[in-house]
Amino acid sequence: MALRTADQYREGLKDNRKIVMLGNTVEDVTEDPYLKVGVETAAFDFLMGHDPEMQEISVMKDPETGEDISTYFEIPDTPEHVHKRYNLVQSACHYADGALPFVKDVGTDIMNGLLAVARIMGNKTYERRINDYRKYCAQKDLSMCGVVTDVKGDRSKSPSQQESPDYYLRVVDETEDEIVVSGAKAHITASAYTDEMIVIPTRNLSESEAEYAVAFAIPVDTKGVIQICRPSFRYEDKSHFPTPRPKRGHVEALVIFDNVRVPKERVFLLREWQFAQYAAYAFTAFHRFTAVTYKIPIIEYFTGVGMLAADANGIQKASHVREQFVRMINYIETVKALAEAAMVEPENLGDSGLYVANRLRSNMAKLYFASNFHEFIRDIQDLAGGLVVTQPSYPDWQRDDLRPYLERYMGGAGNYTAEERLKLMSMLHHLVASDFAGWHEVCTIHAEGSFAAQKMMLMAEAPMEMYKERAKALLGLNV
Amino acid sequence: MALRTADQYREGLKDNRKIVMLGNTVEDVTEDPYLKVGVETAAFDFLMGHDPEMQEISVMKDPETGEDISTYFEIPDTPEHVHKRYNLVQSACHYADGALPFVKDVGTDIMNGLLAVARIMGNKTYERRINDYRKYCAQKDLSMCGVVTDVKGDRSKSPSQQESPDYYLRVVDETEDEIVVSGAKAHITASAYTDEMIVIPTRNLSESEAEYAVAFAIPVDTKGVIQICRPSFRYEDKSHFPTPRPKRGHVEALVIFDNVRVPKERVFLLREWQFAQYAAYAFTAFHRFTAVTYKIPIIEYFTGVGMLAADANGIQKASHVREQFVRMINYIETVKALAEAAMVEPENLGDSGLYVANRLRSNMAKLYFASNFHEFIRDIQDLAGGLVVTQPSYPDWQRDDLRPYLERYMGGAGNYTAEERLKLMSMLHHLVASDFAGWHEVCTIHAEGSFAAQKMMLMAEAPMEMYKERAKALLGLNV
Amino acid sequence: MALRTADQYREGLKDNRKIVMLGNTVEDVTEDPYLKVGVETAAFDFLMGHDPEMQEISVMKDPETGEDISTYFEIPDTPEHVHKRYNLVQSACHYADGALPFVKDVGTDIMNGLLAVARIMGNKTYERRINDYRKYCAQKDLSMCGVVTDVKGDRSKSPSQQESPDYYLRVVDETEDEIVVSGAKAHITASAYTDEMIVIPTRNLSESEAEYAVAFAIPVDTKGVIQICRPSFRYEDKSHFPTPRPKRGHVEALVIFDNVRVPKERVFLLREWQFAQYAAYAFTAFHRFTAVTYKIPIIEYFTGVGMLAADANGIQKASHVREQFVRMINYIETVKALAEAAMVEPENLGDSGLYVANRLRSNMAKLYFASNFHEFIRDIQDLAGGLVVTQPSYPDWQRDDLRPYLERYMGGAGNYTAEERLKLMSMLHHLVASDFAGWHEVCTIHAEGSFAAQKMMLMAEAPMEMYKERAKALLGLNV
Amino acid sequence: MALRTADQYREGLKDNRKIVMLGNTVEDVTEDPYLKVGVETAAFDFLMGHDPEMQEISVMKDPETGEDISTYFEIPDTPEHVHKRYNLVQSACHYADGALPFVKDVGTDIMNGLLAVARIMGNKTYERRINDYRKYCAQKDLSMCGVVTDVKGDRSKSPSQQESPDYYLRVVDETEDEIVVSGAKAHITASAYTDEMIVIPTRNLSESEAEYAVAFAIPVDTKGVIQICRPSFRYEDKSHFPTPRPKRGHVEALVIFDNVRVPKERVFLLREWQFAQYAAYAFTAFHRFTAVTYKIPIIEYFTGVGMLAADANGIQKASHVREQFVRMINYIETVKALAEAAMVEPENLGDSGLYVANRLRSNMAKLYFASNFHEFIRDIQDLAGGLVVTQPSYPDWQRDDLRPYLERYMGGAGNYTAEERLKLMSMLHHLVASDFAGWHEVCTIHAEGSFAAQKMMLMAEAPMEMYKERAKALLGLNV
Repeated sequence: MALRTADQYREGLKDNRKIVMLGNTVEDVTEDPYLKVGVETAAFDFLMGHDPEMQEISVMKDPETGEDISTYFEIPDTPEHVHKRYNLVQSACHYADGALPFVKDVGTDIMNGLLAVARIMGNKTYERRINDYRKYCAQKDLSMCGVVTDVKGDRSKSPSQQESPDYYLRVVDETEDEIVVSGAKAHITASAYTDEMIVIPTRNLSESEAEYAVAFAIPVDTKGVIQICRPSFRYEDKSHFPTPRPKRGHVEALVIFDNVRVPKERVFLLREWQFAQYAAYAFTAFHRFTAVTYKIPIIEYFTGVGMLAADANGIQKASHVREQFVRMINYIETVKALAEAAMVEPENLGDSGLYVANRLRSNMAKLYFASNFHEFIRDIQDLAGGLVVTQPSYPDWQRDDLRPYLERYMGGAGNYTAEERLKLMSMLHHLVASDFAGWHEVCTIHAEGSFAAQKMMLMAEAPMEMYKERAKALLGLNV
Repeated sequence: MALRTADQYREGLKDNRKIVMLGNTVEDVTEDPYLKVGVETAAFDFLMGHDPEMQEISVMKDPETGEDISTYFEIPDTPEHVHKRYNLVQSACHYADGALPFVKDVGTDIMNGLLAVARIMGNKTYERRINDYRKYCAQKDLSMCGVVTDVKGDRSKSPSQQESPDYYLRVVDETEDEIVVSGAKAHITASAYTDEMIVIPTRNLSESEAEYAVAFAIPVDTKGVIQICRPSFRYEDKSHFPTPRPKRGHVEALVIFDNVRVPKERVFLLREWQFAQYAAYAFTAFHRFTAVTYKIPIIEYFTGVGMLAADANGIQKASHVREQFVRMINYIETVKALAEAAMVEPENLGDSGLYVANRLRSNMAKLYFASNFHEFIRDIQDLAGGLVVTQPSYPDWQRDDLRPYLERYMGGAGNYTAEERLKLMSMLHHLVASDFAGWHEVCTIHAEGSFAAQKMMLMAEAPMEMYKERAKALLGLNV
Repeated sequence: MALRTADQYREGLKDNRKIVMLGNTVEDVTEDPYLKVGVETAAFDFLMGHDPEMQEISVMKDPETGEDISTYFEIPDTPEHVHKRYNLVQSACHYADGALPFVKDVGTDIMNGLLAVARIMGNKTYERRINDYRKYCAQKDLSMCGVVTDVKGDRSKSPSQQESPDYYLRVVDETEDEIVVSGAKAHITASAYTDEMIVIPTRNLSESEAEYAVAFAIPVDTKGVIQICRPSFRYEDKSHFPTPRPKRGHVEALVIFDNVRVPKERVFLLREWQFAQYAAYAFTAFHRFTAVTYKIPIIEYFTGVGMLAADANGIQKASHVREQFVRMINYIETVKALAEAAMVEPENLGDSGLYVANRLRSNMAKLYFASNFHEFIRDIQDLAGGLVVTQPSYPDWQRDDLRPYLERYMGGAGNYTAEERLKLMSMLHHLVASDFAGWHEVCTIHAEGSFAAQKMMLMAEAPMEMYKERAKALLGLNV
Repeated sequence: MALRTADQYREGLKDNRKIVMLGNTVEDVTEDPYLKVGVETAAFDFLMGHDPEMQEISVMKDPETGEDISTYFEIPDTPEHVHKRYNLVQSACHYADGALPFVKDVGTDIMNGLLAVARIMGNKTYERRINDYRKYCAQKDLSMCGVVTDVKGDRSKSPSQQESPDYYLRVVDETEDEIVVSGAKAHITASAYTDEMIVIPTRNLSESEAEYAVAFAIPVDTKGVIQICRPSFRYEDKSHFPTPRPKRGHVEALVIFDNVRVPKERVFLLREWQFAQYAAYAFTAFHRFTAVTYKIPIIEYFTGVGMLAADANGIQKASHVREQFVRMINYIETVKALAEAAMVEPENLGDSGLYVANRLRSNMAKLYFASNFHEFIRDIQDLAGGLVVTQPSYPDWQRDDLRPYLERYMGGAGNYTAEERLKLMSMLHHLVASDFAGWHEVCTIHAEGSFAAQKMMLMAEAPMEMYKERAKALLGLNV
């Protein structure tokens, strides 16, 4: 089967999936005004496969069939793969108007993580199953989401210490060919509009918590799977000025598993509680770098819009504005430099033969990105001025009685027309002062690993013993 | 005439005012779903005047008539007045569910500023006019907004250097009894639902810019005044969980003056260009302290909600959460302490006989508040978790088929029911991750003086010569 | 007995005290080149008592004898006392060329703390003893140091968990009239040149650690007390340019107690282990505010010298320098404002009838001071330029063959002579780039309570329940 | 001639150089207690050339003679040279006990800069002269310093605007074969103990300032050159505990040129005022990367000593200490990562054929290093505790009557002996709380480019147009 078109992708979403959006059952996710924004952003992945300018980077030959498949499915078995992934993810973002299509990267990051775990465990069955699943997805050109974070209950307690056993997804029954799972996973991006979901555990487990140690994949419309969605923003916001390219973004869901049956051929971990944490960890070893990679085009775009606003307001030469430019430059270029430094010496993850970017530096990049994002937004809000939140709306502009006033008063520094300046302010409202902006701030902190998780990785990966040994040598301490 | 009731206030808004909201002409501001939130927040000012528990602080006797008037109208001619204002503004906020009613404070801050300017100029006519106007507003118990910020055009240029003369409001004609003004003012809070607007210049002017040196007051429904409004949030957001007290807030407008006629009895500055900057400055001397004062209950409330979220998630004892609590405590208590320190020695503004809080400390308080707000929000977003943006909505909760799942999975640490926890998350979405949150962040930076304005005041008011003289004395330098 | 003169103070130090300085036994602390700097700084306390301009603030009548005593000894039994202490400490600093004389403040802070503890315990014997001791010191006009911090060993362990019982000072024997103590206390300021030392415990203790719960006072030359001193800087540094007022400062000691006998009349706590922590805490309740108070003149002085350096270099109008001035102003004025806010509502400590400044705000002031000091120093180093560390020395200036070159090349902006500018740079080397500067940075962090101690106090004293209750009320949560 | 030995280097310094140290004329720089520390640190450069383990990295064949020369002299005419330099500089630091020998790197950075300028000017004479000079130094294995920063006078003014023409070094006379220069240069590192000095201008110049546009090289003992030195610390500090490797460091000088004659064969720029700024700039393009490179081993060493102190105090597992470790790791690893990212794509400087590390990233690395150094030091001071400044000294330890006390009380957590722990504290005093520490802090800010210089480079080198173009494309703005 060849690579699917965007239309084939959209058609594929019209199945029996159970999706609720703001209390309403969604019949067709491609038509829902909120979910559509995600569908259309994801669709770029399929456009990319048919665009000659993108194919060199986005399409490869299946090593077995010789057919075209998406390069997302390539196994990262050389250090060079890390660079290729970096280019693939960034190119996809630029192609999709600055947003990540998101429907193959996280899924293949999980596949890669599970493959590494299977190899480290030495479990050939799991290795075969995950490889078969990879081929299945590649050959059918499916979209996938990653289903990781449990709802957790009391976060200071482990699964077995919770008042209810339901706070982490678990195996509740098993037959010869199937397992049955129940639980709920939160903050799942794009799950409402992918074909497949891949589920892994989220934390370390003890022996008595073996039922929670489970990883598997199922089609999104599997019976018992219910998704409660919430928009990050609306596809059509009439107050905003139209731009040639629509806004892009994604939608998260709370995914409920109510006695969901999973065929064993799709189970990649089952009660091996000792490997639950590593399954989560191996995934993040791949995905934290993906995350940093796709943030770069996003913050470049934010920076550009902010700098244009400074121009439009005539403040770009003020000394305090130059200080802000310096901070913004430092911000994006440091994230970029840390990401590139992470590619200087990729690591063979747990000797699995799979390569990831240097984990210390990936984590530093992610931590730097997340620690400084709010100040970055503050600087853009400062450059843009109060109009970000008090700007006249597009319907105001459309009124013939009001437009002349707006043309007269909204011109700013004069390098843009009033309409252009309002369009800029309108986009800035979306980017830095709306529901979408709030979603962005929160995702910065909580998506792809918390501050605490990144700091833990810094402590684990930093060469602390080297620092200390060198100091001891110079001091003549023999401890 | 006695103090008006909230209903009388609402009735008074049904006049000929020209209001556009998102492209639609508003017939009745008390019914518009967006403006209503402002009207109802403002209404607390009038409720307060009739509530026996609030009257000691909110009602005074008119020194001439002996009738009840609002204490906002009291002339601040003793140092103690600064304390009284602090208590009045904070009490009003607590009374209005955490928001400032906003329809008398900024107006009387401008009146106080204009009275100081008139006295400093030695202009008895202006002094009489402003006093008459104060009495008029007090006795009719009117609501007022302050109309200050011009649309500005190229911010690196003064009014006469702009390509168009229209970027700052100016006098375009004059008769014996009236002046005629044109221009546009931006970011005007509450102007759509006050009775009066008071207009002052926004910056320093040169002699050739005398036409821009004008201050006056008019009723909001004066012919030629057109307001283009934009909501900070909607009064009814069905996705949010209901709470016993509705959300409060305000609405800004772009106010256009198209050949508006102003009777000279309401003109308080006319072509005295040398005093234009001081008129803006004197206003801010009063208003910056008001601003800091009303921020305190707001950030206490944000802090409380954030700390409850930590409890609800079971993380309140984690060491990184305690660090966040320390930062949040430091944040609010430093703003409070700086505001209180500003009251230790009030200043007689320009020897006008009117007292303001210490300006160095007011500005430091405002600068501290604004500089650290985004980090404060980041900490609350971090405490609350990803649910802030992915939470199920109230319509989801209302569905009998979904509620059992939500009860089962959304309980968190167990000290709240799932419904209570979702209500908390719903409010947090509003406070830290919505259009309203974006509006808050932007206002923090741009409302009531920019970072640059506050830093200029720090340089102007700090005892730099004292620092230097002491150093010289110890060093024996005679320069 | 009347207040002593500075000479009488110096004479009083010539006793049998055991002092070692950099390996040498010190025969006369008033002559040692390192200790002399401390002696002469302390001497200002005695000068102040005889200076008519200072007596109103520094001298009071003994309530019993009517004789003159130092106001340091006044019992803080009214809220106003907090203001008086603030003025006394700051005046003393200005009087002593910017340094705190240090030989009565910490001692009386401890006395006040012990009196509060005795009252809270309801122990009349201890209350009488501490009052007798206060009178004794006041009437003899003695100088005192506070001996608090134990050497601690492994800081993650309590006294009884340590490998050796010696890491905290303890009672090793007892007779009818005396106790015998052994141990060592670190970082003790001015102990080499005071008359008396007052010793208190430093932490919470368990019942099995009762021997460590001991507080007492002894003369510094008591048998068994050995002090190992280390200079913060030398009194005479020939490389520095002379100034009309010598540099001031203090010297710390490691104080060893080798079976020291203490008469019971001087014992203020003995095995009441439940009160050990409160004894430390009550002391800091007084002393943290003293600390903040005396830092203010110091950082004002640093700021003045830094701003003069900017003038001397001709950079005072550069935009980045103005940003630094704003930061420096914010720094000192925030410390001042927090200290003044701490005096708005003094607290009755544990209902003991003794008043302390608001503890939340004292701690915030101290934490703010310590958290931002290094950035403050960085700004001064930046303003001053590389000459801070590469400046020609005073002996270079004294050479007739070199002086003409220095006059020609060291003039800077021209508002100072080359000699004056070098004098300024010489002082800046001392203040921000020398052993003394390092001592200052470290003291900022470790003296008068660590960051961790201050954060603990913030958590303990902040109105967290109020924040949460208000939020619950608005949200309608009944938890 | 072969590579010189360390002894040959020391012998070579015994010439007619005029050196003053703290007012004393220095007869032999190899014996002066202050200068000796610099001489011995520099000597490692010559040891390295004869150490078989270092020769692969430190020695190359002269392309003309085939003789061994130092790799410092290699012309960086390929991108790979940037990596080689990085390795050379870091290896030299590790070899020299953590300090940079400093006597060939800055000199060759200037040679490279001058060669680039000559090529960009198309001036074959200068190109030949600088190449000849490079060969001369390489074949004689000479040490060199860079003489850049003028004394400047009023920093807000250019050379011709100063009150005196002497504030920048200039040509005061010229003959057929020579020029004569006068002026003074400040903060010159290692000039007292190198063989040669290379002088370049420090800023942009106007046509009327052509006399200031001059670059040249001379032997350090040339007539008319006088150096006034100031130590960064003393070679022998008896209070510190001895360690197997002595402390390393350097000494700066104020270098005075009193009618110094320079043969034209050593003149590399003469009155080409248009290229004065580029000469300074080209030097920094090389040297800023050298600077970042040698800082890395230094801060690794600081970190190691700080972490050992935490271990020695038993606090390494406290949550606030782990936060400090995270900050320290972030600090050093970010500097490293930025430096490595700067090598990913070296730049051909001004198309001169000479390669430098990416300038945006070099500058970001330097700015990050300098902006965060003081906080890094604060964290180490915090980890180490008050003992950093109150520790007993080595002479105390040597006394038989005191040592038993110190053994008993100074043991800390028990993983080190008291002597080892005091040795650690002694080194920490040197590193973070002494004259040397102050010198380090100031150099961090002022050496190798100020904050302002680095920010200017960020603005110049960042792809601001790319950011803006991308934003315009998505927004549909055609400006």
